Amino acid sequence: MPVDNKAAIEITAYTAVPPFAKGRIKDIRLRWALEEIGEPYRVRLIDGIFEEKPEGYLADQPFGQVPVYKEDGLTLFESGAILIHIGERDKRLLPRDPAGRGRAIGWTIAALNSIEPTIQTLVIIYVTGDGQDWKDGAKTAALPFAEKRLAKLAHWLGDREWLEDRFTIGDIVMIDVLRNAPAELLTPHANLAAYVDRGTARPAFRRAMAAHLEDCAAREPEPA
Amino acid sequence: MPVDNKAAIEITAYTAVPPFAKGRIKDIRLRWALEEIGEPYRVRLIDGIFEEKPEGYLADQPFGQVPVYKEDGLTLFESGAILIHIGERDKRLLPRDPAGRGRAIGWTIAALNSIEPTIQTLVIIYVTGDGQDWKDGAKTAALPFAEKRLAKLAHWLGDREWLEDRFTIGDIVMIDVLRNAPAELLTPHANLAAYVDRGTARPAFRRAMAAHLEDCAAREPEPA
Repeated sequence: MPVDNKAAIEITAYTAVPPFAKGRIKDIRLRWALEEIGEPYRVRLIDGIFEEKPEGYLADQPFGQVPVYKEDGLTLFESGAILIHIGERDKRLLPRDPAGRGRAIGWTIAALNSIEPTIQTLVIIYVTGDGQDWKDGAKTAALPFAEKRLAKLAHWLGDREWLEDRFTIGDIVMIDVLRNAPAELLTPHANLAAYVDRGTARPAFRRAMAAHLEDCAAREPEPA
Repeated sequence: MPVDNKAAIEITAYTAVPPFAKGRIKDIRLRWALEEIGEPYRVRLIDGIFEEKPEGYLADQPFGQVPVYKEDGLTLFESGAILIHIGERDKRLLPRDPAGRGRAIGWTIAALNSIEPTIQTLVIIYVTGDGQDWKDGAKTAALPFAEKRLAKLAHWLGDREWLEDRFTIGDIVMIDVLRNAPAELLTPHANLAAYVDRGTARPAFRRAMAAHLEDCAAREPEPA
C-alpha cells in the first residue's frame, strides 16, 4: 500500500471529520491516483475540517482546505491541479499524445466546473434548507440545471467503459463527483450509475477510501 | 488585433445571445489569453446560446457549450483546459518553472472550483427565484458560502497586483469569474474590486470583449 512515512510525496488530510463529510474529502482523489500508479505517499494530518489550521497553512492553501501536495520543494493546491501534476508524472493516468492529454484534462475541468457546481448548488439547498419553508421552491428551481448536465454526460458516456478510450484523471474526478451526488440525479441514468460502480470497485479506489477513513476517524471532531 | 480568418487557431462563439448573457460567455477567456500573447485566431460562429447546435458539435463539446478550440487537428473543450494549453504554448501566461506553473494552474482550478461554484449558486437563486417567495430564504442560506471564500481570497490577495508575482492564466479566469459576481460580494473587499478593475483595464481584455460583443450581437436571439 502506498502510504509510507518515508515517501517523498506528502499530502494533507484531516484528523477529525463529522459523519456527513467522512468519505467525501478531496484527499481521496489524490490517494486514488497515487494508488493507481503505486506511488508511495505520506500523510500530514491536520486538525479537523472546521477547526483552525496550523500556522503557515494558508500560505500553501489560500482557502485553508485539504489537500495540499508537497514533493521535492514543490507545493501544490487544488485537487484538480494536483491530479494534472500526478498525471504528468505517469502516463497511465494522463496520455502523452496531445489529443488524448487534452481530452483527459478537458474532462477533469468538466467534472470540476460543468458538473460539480450544479450538484453543489443542490447540496447547499438540501443541507441549509433542511426543515425550512423555502427548500422545496429552491430545489425545484435548481434541479433542472443539474439534470440537464447529467443527461448530457449520460448521452456522451453511452456504453463506454470510461469517458475516453482508457481510464484517466478525468475519470477519477468525475467518478468522485458523481458518487457524492444526491441519488435522485443518478437514478434516471443506469449507465452513469454503472460507471460510478465500475470506478469505485477498482482496487486503487478501495485502498484510497480505506486509508482516508482511517485517518479522518483519528479522533472525534470538536463541536462546531 | 488577433481575429484573423486565416489563423490556425479556431474558437467557437455564439451569433445571438440574450442581453443578460452578453459579455459573459466563456469564449471571452480564450480571446483574452490570445490577445495577451498576440496569437491570431479565427471564430466559428454557431447558433444562439439556447438554440440547437450544429451536427457533430457534441462530439467536440459533450455539453454543447461554447467555446471549442481547434488547432492543427487538436480539439479541446472546457475553457479552463484550453487556457492551460494556451499557457503551455507561451510562457508569458504560464511560468515554465514547476513551482510557478503549479501555482498558476492551482489558481486556475481555484477560480473554477472554489470560487465560481459558490457565486453560481447565488446567481441561480437570484435568477430563478426572481419574484418567488423562497428567494430570500435560499439567498440568506447560500450567501455565507460565497462570502467566506471571497474573504479568504481577499486575504490572500492583500496588496498584491496579481495572485502570484506575475500575471498568469489564473488571473484571467479569476478576474473573469469575479467581474460576473453579484456586486454585493465584491463591495466589502476594495482590493478585490481593484484587482478586477486592473484586469479588465488591460488592453488585451478590452479588445477581447469588443470582439466578443460584436460576434454575439450578430443577430437577435430566437425567443426561448
